[in-house]
Amino acid sequence: MTSFQSPAAQALRARYGSDALPGPLNDISAQLLEHRSVRAYADKPVSDEILRVAVAAAQSASTSSNLQAWSVVAVRDRATLAKLGELAGGQQHVVDAPLFLAWIVDLSRLRRLGDALNTPALAMDYLEMHTVGVVDAALAAQNAAVALESYGLGLVYIGGMRNHPEAVAELLGLPKGCTVLFGMCVGYPDLSEQTGIKPRLPQESVLHFERYDASGEAEQIKDYDARMDAFNESQHRKSRSWSQLAAWRVRGPESLSGRDRLREALANLGFELR
Amino acid sequence: MTSFQSPAAQALRARYGSDALPGPLNDISAQLLEHRSVRAYADKPVSDEILRVAVAAAQSASTSSNLQAWSVVAVRDRATLAKLGELAGGQQHVVDAPLFLAWIVDLSRLRRLGDALNTPALAMDYLEMHTVGVVDAALAAQNAAVALESYGLGLVYIGGMRNHPEAVAELLGLPKGCTVLFGMCVGYPDLSEQTGIKPRLPQESVLHFERYDASGEAEQIKDYDARMDAFNESQHRKSRSWSQLAAWRVRGPESLSGRDRLREALANLGFELR
Repeated sequence: MTSFQSPAAQALRARYGSDALPGPLNDISAQLLEHRSVRAYADKPVSDEILRVAVAAAQSASTSSNLQAWSVVAVRDRATLAKLGELAGGQQHVVDAPLFLAWIVDLSRLRRLGDALNTPALAMDYLEMHTVGVVDAALAAQNAAVALESYGLGLVYIGGMRNHPEAVAELLGLPKGCTVLFGMCVGYPDLSEQTGIKPRLPQESVLHFERYDASGEAEQIKDYDARMDAFNESQHRKSRSWSQLAAWRVRGPESLSGRDRLREALANLGFELR
Repeated sequence: MTSFQSPAAQALRARYGSDALPGPLNDISAQLLEHRSVRAYADKPVSDEILRVAVAAAQSASTSSNLQAWSVVAVRDRATLAKLGELAGGQQHVVDAPLFLAWIVDLSRLRRLGDALNTPALAMDYLEMHTVGVVDAALAAQNAAVALESYGLGLVYIGGMRNHPEAVAELLGLPKGCTVLFGMCVGYPDLSEQTGIKPRLPQESVLHFERYDASGEAEQIKDYDARMDAFNESQHRKSRSWSQLAAWRVRGPESLSGRDRLREALANLGFELR
């Protein structure tokens, strides 16, 4: 359990403002609260030993019907990383990452299983099986993230991997029935470029009791915009308000960095999504 | 760091067999490795205080462009739980759960934001934005799961929530642009019904270096089938092999417990998935 002045208590205040929620923090919840994305890395490799523990943690996450419909490709090759960084829309931290993990929705293993047993695998063509793979991959990745951070590593998720799924699939040699869900840059943080803990929406905005209730939302978002403004100022960053940025981000297909064609890309990779 | 005989080292062997991978285990990776689904609960409530810490951990997970496109509905009402258990296909542990968390893909908040700012939110109709919500919700849920387990709670994910998404949405009062992704039963484990740690595929099956490589897969799955057989025997459970079960599970739409109509259900809930 941690004191009021502990890093965890400070993290709680950073997330929610001065009215931080009460709660008995232990070492594990404290680490979770202290998460921040890390995009600048020290010049120090990430060992296979730690990678293997992280993947063991990933495999220990829940998986729908134990189907384990995911894979991960660990990339350290500089030429591959340069291409991946470009495909992600020019993200230098991908190019520079000591270790990059490409998290894969993998229905191909089950397809091969069906082939080997000479049984049909028609469920593969349904949105549900894609959803199973997405959830399996995401739960696995987050367990890996928690494990990696517990060894002092920093990381950032890279949704930009979905900008060009076919090109990523070709680069990583993915068979039909596989697609990248997101990437993850991993490395020891460059402590000279440490970022703050980003505030989040008031807990009332996301946590509902018994039934969904958005009645206080306008006030909550006003509060959040103000806290995000203060955060951006503290990071010497000029930014529009969270509301305006979020609305801008979802204004239309042109705001999706090419991912408005995700459906077509998945069809090309063997996901019919019926 | 843990010794060879520690629970964590034992968990590692339970996952992968006698050739457990080497790795420097710390308390956090140890907890992740020791995860097992818990479906039997002691008669002891889960406090709001711990729930709030778990949701703070959930909110501390990464979220695409900080959009926070998820919500969670905490349910303790017995009548609601009885209905949810029925909708999940008759799952008694849902009916009996001290606390049930319905994890929601929530694009409705961003829709309301667009309305309030009088800006279009046309990106909502694309598969990409649904994927953002699914990943956000899954990362959040897994952080909550890790936090809850760190306080001695047990849990199980309930994919059966997707059997009848419209009925769940109505029951929980979800607005347009929201759908349940999965549920989570939470409670203090009934220690008289403790289950073993389930083996997983050999790490080589899911972890690839530089490029995807399934060349050793047939052997790996043979090994895994044998380990799962031994596990089922140790749990006094008769079962077909993992291969056969997995192939059966994906044989066709009839094996999806009604989720072959997930696409239609999502359309009814406001997800066009273009």
